[in-house]
Amino acid sequence: MNIPIKKIAKLVDGTIQGDDSTIVTCVSKIDDSKKNSLTFLANLKYEKHLYKTKATCIIVDKNFEPSKKVHASLIKVENPYNKFASILNLFTSNKLKKGIHSSSFISKNVQIGNNVFIGAKCFIDENVIIKDNTMINANCTIGKNSTIGKNSILHSAVNVYHNCDIGNNCTIHSGAVIGSDGFGFAPTKNSYSKIKQIGNVVIKNNVEIGANTTIDRATIGSTIIRDGVKLDNLIQIAHNVEIGENTVIASLTGIAGSTKIGKNCMIGGHVAINGHIKIADNVKISAKAGVTKSILKQGAIIQGYWAFDRIKHQRSYIHFKKLPDIVKRIDKLEDK
Amino acid sequence: MNIPIKKIAKLVDGTIQGDDSTIVTCVSKIDDSKKNSLTFLANLKYEKHLYKTKATCIIVDKNFEPSKKVHASLIKVENPYNKFASILNLFTSNKLKKGIHSSSFISKNVQIGNNVFIGAKCFIDENVIIKDNTMINANCTIGKNSTIGKNSILHSAVNVYHNCDIGNNCTIHSGAVIGSDGFGFAPTKNSYSKIKQIGNVVIKNNVEIGANTTIDRATIGSTIIRDGVKLDNLIQIAHNVEIGENTVIASLTGIAGSTKIGKNCMIGGHVAINGHIKIADNVKISAKAGVTKSILKQGAIIQGYWAFDRIKHQRSYIHFKKLPDIVKRIDKLEDK
Amino acid sequence: MNIPIKKIAKLVDGTIQGDDSTIVTCVSKIDDSKKNSLTFLANLKYEKHLYKTKATCIIVDKNFEPSKKVHASLIKVENPYNKFASILNLFTSNKLKKGIHSSSFISKNVQIGNNVFIGAKCFIDENVIIKDNTMINANCTIGKNSTIGKNSILHSAVNVYHNCDIGNNCTIHSGAVIGSDGFGFAPTKNSYSKIKQIGNVVIKNNVEIGANTTIDRATIGSTIIRDGVKLDNLIQIAHNVEIGENTVIASLTGIAGSTKIGKNCMIGGHVAINGHIKIADNVKISAKAGVTKSILKQGAIIQGYWAFDRIKHQRSYIHFKKLPDIVKRIDKLEDK
Repeated sequence: MNIPIKKIAKLVDGTIQGDDSTIVTCVSKIDDSKKNSLTFLANLKYEKHLYKTKATCIIVDKNFEPSKKVHASLIKVENPYNKFASILNLFTSNKLKKGIHSSSFISKNVQIGNNVFIGAKCFIDENVIIKDNTMINANCTIGKNSTIGKNSILHSAVNVYHNCDIGNNCTIHSGAVIGSDGFGFAPTKNSYSKIKQIGNVVIKNNVEIGANTTIDRATIGSTIIRDGVKLDNLIQIAHNVEIGENTVIASLTGIAGSTKIGKNCMIGGHVAINGHIKIADNVKISAKAGVTKSILKQGAIIQGYWAFDRIKHQRSYIHFKKLPDIVKRIDKLEDK
Repeated sequence: MNIPIKKIAKLVDGTIQGDDSTIVTCVSKIDDSKKNSLTFLANLKYEKHLYKTKATCIIVDKNFEPSKKVHASLIKVENPYNKFASILNLFTSNKLKKGIHSSSFISKNVQIGNNVFIGAKCFIDENVIIKDNTMINANCTIGKNSTIGKNSILHSAVNVYHNCDIGNNCTIHSGAVIGSDGFGFAPTKNSYSKIKQIGNVVIKNNVEIGANTTIDRATIGSTIIRDGVKLDNLIQIAHNVEIGENTVIASLTGIAGSTKIGKNCMIGGHVAINGHIKIADNVKISAKAGVTKSILKQGAIIQGYWAFDRIKHQRSYIHFKKLPDIVKRIDKLEDK
Repeated sequence: MNIPIKKIAKLVDGTIQGDDSTIVTCVSKIDDSKKNSLTFLANLKYEKHLYKTKATCIIVDKNFEPSKKVHASLIKVENPYNKFASILNLFTSNKLKKGIHSSSFISKNVQIGNNVFIGAKCFIDENVIIKDNTMINANCTIGKNSTIGKNSILHSAVNVYHNCDIGNNCTIHSGAVIGSDGFGFAPTKNSYSKIKQIGNVVIKNNVEIGANTTIDRATIGSTIIRDGVKLDNLIQIAHNVEIGENTVIASLTGIAGSTKIGKNCMIGGHVAINGHIKIADNVKISAKAGVTKSILKQGAIIQGYWAFDRIKHQRSYIHFKKLPDIVKRIDKLEDK
C-alpha cells in the first residue's frame, strides 16, 4: 500500500509541516520505527525518538514544535493518537470475504442474506437467520432459531446457543460463548436440582465481545447487552444481567445474575459484581473492586474490596500500609 | 404449548384461587408479563405488579392474600420461586436428539450406546465409550480412551482430552476443557522442564460444568469432581484437585493443584484457593476471598484477602474504611 | 510397559537398595499405591505409607534410611520428586502422530513440513507455514499467513488468528486464542470507535500456553511471549504486552495493554497488572495482587491490593485483622 501523506493529512484534518509529497507504506511505533512508515507522537516522553526516527511521517499535536531538526514530515492535528488510530484501517486489507465454505453444514430453513461469508467447518442449526454482509469464520456453531444481524463478524469457534439474537455491526472473538445456561439450581434435601434456563441472550448493535467471554442466557426473559457495549476477553455475564449502552468492561470481570448496569459505565478488570443489584449510569469501577451493593449515584467512582468511594479507599489504603507504625504510636501512648 | 393451570397446580402441590379452568402457554416475569403466561410472586416488593399484570396465572405463597382485586388466577404453594422454577421444563421443547451427524468423524473401536446423539463436525477418537441417551453437540472433540456416561449433555465445542471419565446425567457447556495438562514444571538451571502429566480427570454423576471452565488432568492419579458438583463458567480446577459432593462454585474462581475441597461447600466467584490445602465440608467462602491455608472447621464461613472468619472480616473492614478518622484520633491523643 | 528398575536407577542417577532385579509397569502415589508401580517419597510426613505400600519401587532421598522393614526396593537420589517427575514420560505412549486427517481443510499455499500431524476438522487458512514434527489436533483454526514452528503441539480447538508467529517446542492447550483484537477503542461523542488492531502475536520457543488463555494481537507491532514462558489456563494477555524469558504465570491473571514483564518472574493466580508499566526481572508477585505501578527493583517480592513489599503487606494485614481491638485501645486511651 502506497499512501500519499497528503491523503492522510486530509483524513485526519491536519496540516503538513515539511515535505508534503512523500508516501508511506506501513505504520510503526516511534521507538521502533521503520523506513517509509507513518508513526505518531502523543506522549512527550517519547519526543527524543522523533529526532532519530526512520519514519517518513509523524502525526503530532497541532501545538507541538520540534526543538531540533526533524527529517520526517509532520502532520499536525488535534489529539494525535486518536487521529492515528482512526486511519489504521488504511494499512490492512479489508477485503470482505463472501460465500459459504463447502465444509460447513447449513441446516434446513436457514435464511442467509446477501454477501454473507460462512467459513470452514461451521454448523448452522435450523431456522437460523444470518443477515447481509456478515462474516462467520471457521468452526463456529450457531444454535437453532438464533439470528445474527448485518455487517457483523464472528471470529473462529464462536458458540451461539439456540434462540439468541445478535445485532448489527457486532464483533465477537474466538471462543466466546453466547447463551449458555444460567447458573441456577434449587436446593433439594441432599443436593441441587437444575432450574431450566428457558430465556435467551439479546445483543444489540455495535457490540464487541472478547475472546472466551461467556454470556449466559436468562432463566426467563433475556440477558441484554445494549448498543455500543464493549466487553474484553474472559468476562462472565450471568443470566438476566443487563448492560447499558456504551458501557466498557475490562477482562476477567464477572457480573452475577440479574444485575443491571447503566449506560456509559467504565468497569476495570477482575471486578466482581454481586447479583440482583443496580449500577447507575456513568459509574466508574476500578480494577479488582468487589461491588456488593447497588451504586445509585450517577458518575460515582469506586474501588476496593469491598468497593466504596475511590478517593476514600485510597486514603484508607495509605493508612493500611502504615498500620505497623500506627500501632506503635498506640503502644507509646499506652506506655505514657 | 397449552397447559391447563390445573395440571400446574397438581405438579407444584398447590391450590388454585380464582378461575381454575384457564390455560397458559408461556412464562414471564411479573414486572414484564405477557398474555396467557404463568408467572410468580416470591418477593413482596414486586406485589404491586400483581394488580396490573397481564399474566393469566401467578404462583404465590400459600399464606399470601392480595390486598386488591387480581384478574389472574393464583396458585398457592410453599416456596413459590422454587415451585415455579421446577416446572419451567414444561415450557421448552425437550425433544431428545438422536443419531450421528454425517459430518462427524467417529474413529475405530468407539462404543456408542442407544439413543446417542452426536452433532455436526465432532471428532471422537479411538476407544471412546459414549453411553445411552447422551447428546454431544457440534464441534466437540473427545480424546482417546475417554468415557461419557448416560444421559449426559455436552454442548458445542467441549474438549475432552484422552483417558478421562465423565459420569451420568452431566451437563458440560460450550468451550469447557476437561483434561488439559496440569501446570507442572521442574526448575532447571536456566529455565523449566515440563513434568509429564500422565493422570486423568474423573467427573462423577450429576455434575454441571460451565462454559469455558478448565479442569486439568492429574500429574499422576486423578483430578476428581464428585457427584452433584456445580461449576459455573470460567473456573480453573488445577491438577489433582478433588471437589466433594454437591459443592457449588461460582465463576472466575481458581483452585490450585492438589487441594481437596469438602462436600456441600459454597464458594463464591473470583475466589483464589491455594494448592495442597484442605477445605472441610459445608464451608462457605465469600466472593473474592483468597484462601492460603486449610480450613478444617466444618461449616466455617470465611472472606477476605486473605480469608478469615466472615464476621470478623466485616468488622475489620468497617474500621479500614474509617482509618483516616482513626489516625486523626491518634494525632489528637498525641497532641495532648 | 515393563521397565526394569535398574533402567530407572540409571536414568535418575540413583543407587538401588533392595532387590534390583524387579520391574515396574506404572506409577502411583505413595498413599494410593498399586502393585508393580513406581512411586516416590519426597515429604517425610508421608513416610508411614512407605511401610505398607504395595508399590514395587520407591524413589527416596539419598540420605533417607527407613526406620522399619520396607518390602519395596528403594532408589536413592538427590531431589526425589524432580527425579520421579523427570521419568514420567516412560509411562505414557509418546507415539508421534503423523499425517493430515481427511476431514481437515488445508487452503492454498500452505507449507507443511515433514512428519506433521493435522487432526480432524481443522481449518488451515492460506499461506500458513507448519514446520516439521508439529502436531495440530482436532478442530483447530490457523489464520492466514501464520506460522507454527517445529516440534510444537496444538491441542484441540486452538484458535490462531492471521499473521501470528508461534515458535518451536511450544505446547498450546485447548481453547487458547492467539491473536484476537486488542481491546482498543477511541471515545467519540456518544460512544466508541474501534481502533483497528493491525499488529500480531509472536510466541518464541519452548512456551506453554494453558487452556482457554487469550493473547491479544498488538495494535501496531507485536505482543511478544519470549522463550520459555509458561502460562497457565484462563490468562489474559492484552495487546502489545511483552513477557520476558522463563517467566511463569498462574491462572486467571490478567495483564493490561503495553506492559512489559521481565525475565524469570513468578506471577501468582488472579493477579491484575495495569497497562503501560514495567516489571523488572526476577520479580515475584503473590496471588491476587493488584499491580498499579512499575516494579523496577529486580527480585522484588510483592503482594496486596494494591501490591507492595510482601513482608510489609503481611505485617499490615495482621494489624488489619486486629483493627477492632486497635480501635478499642484508642477508645480506652481517649477515656483517660
